[in-house]
Amino acid sequence: MTHEIAVIPGDGIGQEVTPAAVEVLEAIDGVDFDFVEGEAGDAVKEETGDALPEETRELAADADATLFGAAGETAADVILPLRQVVGSFANVRPARSYPGLDAVQPDTDIVFIRENTEGVYKGIESEISEGVTTCTRVITEDASEKIAEYGFSYAKQNSYDDVTIAHKANVMRTTDGLFLDAASAVGEDRDASYDTALMDALAMHLVMNPQDYGVVICPNLAGDMLSDLAAGLVGGLGLLPSANIGEENALFEPVHGSAPDIAGEGIANPSAMILSAAMLLDHLGYDEQGDVVRTAVESVLDSGPRTPDLGGDASTEDVTAAVIDEL
Amino acid sequence: MTHEIAVIPGDGIGQEVTPAAVEVLEAIDGVDFDFVEGEAGDAVKEETGDALPEETRELAADADATLFGAAGETAADVILPLRQVVGSFANVRPARSYPGLDAVQPDTDIVFIRENTEGVYKGIESEISEGVTTCTRVITEDASEKIAEYGFSYAKQNSYDDVTIAHKANVMRTTDGLFLDAASAVGEDRDASYDTALMDALAMHLVMNPQDYGVVICPNLAGDMLSDLAAGLVGGLGLLPSANIGEENALFEPVHGSAPDIAGEGIANPSAMILSAAMLLDHLGYDEQGDVVRTAVESVLDSGPRTPDLGGDASTEDVTAAVIDEL
Ligand SMILES: CC(C)[C@H](C(=O)O)[C@@H](O)C(=O)O
Ligand SMILES: CC(C)[C@H](C(=O)O)[C@@H](O)C(=O)O
Repeated sequence: MTHEIAVIPGDGIGQEVTPAAVEVLEAIDGVDFDFVEGEAGDAVKEETGDALPEETRELAADADATLFGAAGETAADVILPLRQVVGSFANVRPARSYPGLDAVQPDTDIVFIRENTEGVYKGIESEISEGVTTCTRVITEDASEKIAEYGFSYAKQNSYDDVTIAHKANVMRTTDGLFLDAASAVGEDRDASYDTALMDALAMHLVMNPQDYGVVICPNLAGDMLSDLAAGLVGGLGLLPSANIGEENALFEPVHGSAPDIAGEGIANPSAMILSAAMLLDHLGYDEQGDVVRTAVESVLDSGPRTPDLGGDASTEDVTAAVIDEL
Repeated sequence: MTHEIAVIPGDGIGQEVTPAAVEVLEAIDGVDFDFVEGEAGDAVKEETGDALPEETRELAADADATLFGAAGETAADVILPLRQVVGSFANVRPARSYPGLDAVQPDTDIVFIRENTEGVYKGIESEISEGVTTCTRVITEDASEKIAEYGFSYAKQNSYDDVTIAHKANVMRTTDGLFLDAASAVGEDRDASYDTALMDALAMHLVMNPQDYGVVICPNLAGDMLSDLAAGLVGGLGLLPSANIGEENALFEPVHGSAPDIAGEGIANPSAMILSAAMLLDHLGYDEQGDVVRTAVESVLDSGPRTPDLGGDASTEDVTAAVIDEL
């Protein structure tokens, strides 16, 4: 079966790491992908006035899955609507430290399951009177249940023993109270073991004892911050893939941005993007192939060529070729 | 001049560390304090149905400054109204690592200046229909300006070169946009140098490179999380003091909670509470005495008796006596 994959490189190093991931997918046995490319980001906004042209939206909507690189200044104008286009309700962000690489906490293996449709991301803001503004944060039982179902299933399928539900229900008693209750009810229904944690205390514990955590189910904005915090623990954004999972559709992107400081030099680390492609493989049912890609990336990280962000002097192409060699 | 100090030990180890801080203040030369004690927390709620009795509110309102220990389950019901009673607009949270103590990042010296009147802490929540809830986050120009004024002044007075304004204005464009604009305008007006940072990216950078940060000016909830994150970097909550600064009044409390697991054993680390008392001294104009207390605590942390949380077997009293010895 041929799958149509929308490929949206975007800006900066997105233009370099996205083709690298496509190359890897093309080198994989047992899959048949049809890649169609679309534009998004600062450059296309400059040209057309629109950071996410209608054609690109349609491409992502119609494809079986989308690979997205990065966008610059227009990041929010690209990724937030793209997540809507693919109906993303779960943003999945694994943060793992790899042996042999410098990390603040070398024993980290946590997957953040971030609610991805509501909270402050609903975009309901007003200027009530001059100098007085509001943002209406929305939390629903349905979305809270759905992300918890996803999180508990993910933990089971991927053999994580620790599930933590993050919240700030001591202050946001109604909204995060609902999130906490709905997510906890899912855990109870499944007879699953889980903990709940105030997200401020959780931020501290994640820094000190990341090895105590496995899957962390979070409201949207809390997941945004906590997953970046964990990126810091494992050595930065260069290694972190992510998935935005919808009912019928999904989008895969590295957690890093367009890195204008090194764009165009051919030295961007393609690992996060290639690991995102591995998540795409899993999502389309090619778990075995996903594992093959992850193992190849790990082996190259361990003893292959390294880009400058990891202290080496290899190019994006060197690393990509080495990963393909290991497949 | 005699200052009236309200003393609210609260629950758990609050009952142990608060008297320790009072002992230290009593041992200081050149100050004249009148201590009046009030009740708050789980225990008084159990008795009276109210976690923060009217007498205690009045005590804090009338005093020149308040020392608060910790509360258990009722923490939010105690500290949020107490902050209102003292008119706290700035929550000041220094996170420093101390030589000789284990820390994830031993080179950390950051002060979070957290807006303390608005954001999601306004408590405006509703159940719009069954299973659909909202929280209205409020950001005003006045409060944003005020916290920035406080933060920039604090940085100057305390010789911090780096000022960072934290925000999430790419998503909360109206509310955090206002916060960012108002706070940046204060920096411009003062010709101060400062950076701005998206709070998710900031969470990552704080973990990886805390030495690059000095004063961080934050919206209320972001400050709650980021300061706890930093507590993780320096070795946990046991060493972190904080101040809640109002126009005419102020409250000082350790960042840690009531620690029910070790309460009653006489082994709680009093450092955070004593350092909070040092902030009280500064606030009342006794900067020199504040420094004396801080130096004493540092010297005891370096080479004096240590409580079990720091790997020692000293009691709260041992540490307190050692600090008083060093004054
Ligand atoms: C660019 C921004 C809107 C986005 C978010 O807040 O979700 C980013 O931080 C992310 O985490 O993908
Ligand atoms: C107890 C809670 C309401 C409080 C807060 O969120 O401000 C606490 O986390 C703190 O930081 O002092």
